[in-house]
Amino acid sequence: MTPLTLFSDAPLGPLATEILNAATQGHTVLKPLVPASSVLAQAAADPNFSQAQIAFGQPHVESVYAAPELKWIQVSSAGFTRYDTLEFRKYVADRGIIVTNSSLVYARACAEHVFSFMLANSRLLPQSLACRALNGSPEWLGLRSGSRSLRGQRVVILGYGGIARELVKLLAPFEMKITAMRRQPRGDEGFPVVTEANLPEALAAADHVINILPENAESRGFINARRLSEMKAGAIFHNIGRGTTVDQHALADALESGHLSAAWLDVTDPEPLPADHVLRLAPHCFITPHTAGGHAAEDETLVNHFVDNFRRFLAGEPLLDRIM
Amino acid sequence: MTPLTLFSDAPLGPLATEILNAATQGHTVLKPLVPASSVLAQAAADPNFSQAQIAFGQPHVESVYAAPELKWIQVSSAGFTRYDTLEFRKYVADRGIIVTNSSLVYARACAEHVFSFMLANSRLLPQSLACRALNGSPEWLGLRSGSRSLRGQRVVILGYGGIARELVKLLAPFEMKITAMRRQPRGDEGFPVVTEANLPEALAAADHVINILPENAESRGFINARRLSEMKAGAIFHNIGRGTTVDQHALADALESGHLSAAWLDVTDPEPLPADHVLRLAPHCFITPHTAGGHAAEDETLVNHFVDNFRRFLAGEPLLDRIM
Repeated sequence: MTPLTLFSDAPLGPLATEILNAATQGHTVLKPLVPASSVLAQAAADPNFSQAQIAFGQPHVESVYAAPELKWIQVSSAGFTRYDTLEFRKYVADRGIIVTNSSLVYARACAEHVFSFMLANSRLLPQSLACRALNGSPEWLGLRSGSRSLRGQRVVILGYGGIARELVKLLAPFEMKITAMRRQPRGDEGFPVVTEANLPEALAAADHVINILPENAESRGFINARRLSEMKAGAIFHNIGRGTTVDQHALADALESGHLSAAWLDVTDPEPLPADHVLRLAPHCFITPHTAGGHAAEDETLVNHFVDNFRRFLAGEPLLDRIM
Repeated sequence: MTPLTLFSDAPLGPLATEILNAATQGHTVLKPLVPASSVLAQAAADPNFSQAQIAFGQPHVESVYAAPELKWIQVSSAGFTRYDTLEFRKYVADRGIIVTNSSLVYARACAEHVFSFMLANSRLLPQSLACRALNGSPEWLGLRSGSRSLRGQRVVILGYGGIARELVKLLAPFEMKITAMRRQPRGDEGFPVVTEANLPEALAAADHVINILPENAESRGFINARRLSEMKAGAIFHNIGRGTTVDQHALADALESGHLSAAWLDVTDPEPLPADHVLRLAPHCFITPHTAGGHAAEDETLVNHFVDNFRRFLAGEPLLDRIM
């Protein structure tokens, strides 16, 4: 076995570091001079990077172009916006560099998070948890009659990948009517899938619109005033993709006018939103601070996913979560 | 068909009233002189009641004993504490009066409500919705790593009836390890069922304890200091049964000491709790105001359930939700 040189800027706890070290014995693992602040933040340019054959974390884009030995990059997030450009895609394709992401690490947690949004909304949890009203009072009657069942409601999922697949499993007992939008429907999804062309019709019927779009040139500002107006009156909008895929002022308008009955957002632009941002002040706008993918032992799951792919890489097998 | 006399004190909206009137054409429906304030509140004694052959609502107990023609009572709630006494049970048994409740009307909504508690807790929704922290900050890292998946966790359900059956369906995709406690296990539940004798062992293993016990002489104060101490450290307690089945001071102590990591309560004693009640001040105690059974078109569902049973009653068929 030829010893390989890995560069990892993924910020890992002691146990995850131990897992990585054990799995890479006999190889060299280089660390950045300046540790990364999170699994999402882009690493700074680092002199060690240029020797890497494998990179794990959030590699600095310009450094990738200056690493002649690089064969495989595993991004430590599900999102990969900074690498999702024509220039980068062409570069790695020409050089034969494999790019994978960590979608599988976060998919289940993201699905449970947006599902918790849907249920909290249907059971009016934020309102009910704040209520001190007497049984039988108008406020109490309003909460009881305003509470909904998800059963039989219509859902449109924008972006059909690992998270959507997990979400669909969780929704099964609710017998919801699911439609997804993806660039290239395959016909094996098990429910109706539309492309952008047929989206207006799907939006007009949906009780819940769930945005899981990654950010790229096509998706930026995708949820704009026109698409919001195509949604059914009283619909609920959820976003666990990227904040930049939404025109946030148009969304605030749709909440202010009452056209949408609520928005549940785990991602915004920027994060966190300033205290006086229109979405902070809009009615029925509920925001969590990009925690959807979080889960206990997250960095162990992250490193185990890398280790799994590392074994596959050494064995010449196809890698999981390949994106380029 | 012999015309029957029905007494209904269930507070119904116009549409539900129309459904009831249409289904009881040719019969007499008497209303109380003083309308009921909610589907939960006991009706006042009413002079009209004495003629009733069928009662629908929350009949006044003493009035039942003074209604010589009474053949069937349908309670408009799932709980039926005020009728669940030896004296009342003996009286209706001796007279051959059928008693049904409206459990099926609320079971699905109650199951979705407590399920929303479980997911909101595992995804730290109350904490995350209030968070304004920057990605990568200690608070943010704490929220991400503190978020949990329900997958594979252990649940103990106290009280196995209609709500539990609905809940078990919703939990299926999470592959949770479910145990229920019921008075008389039948062996056809599809998962382990214990009686009170084996409860300590089940409590010691459970991540989530879900209390759906109705209130009666046996269940009052069931969740006391001893049973709370039998629960695993860090467990989460949920109550959508009745507030009186819990020693609320002992529960507050278990939260204060950190033995329980959270409590999610839809029912308390009294409702609502005063602002200075120990449970209002206890850490990680989340309270909704008895809204678990609430849902859109609740009184239509309620009246349709009664109408369904009325048809069965006329046809001499077994009634749904029979409790006595």
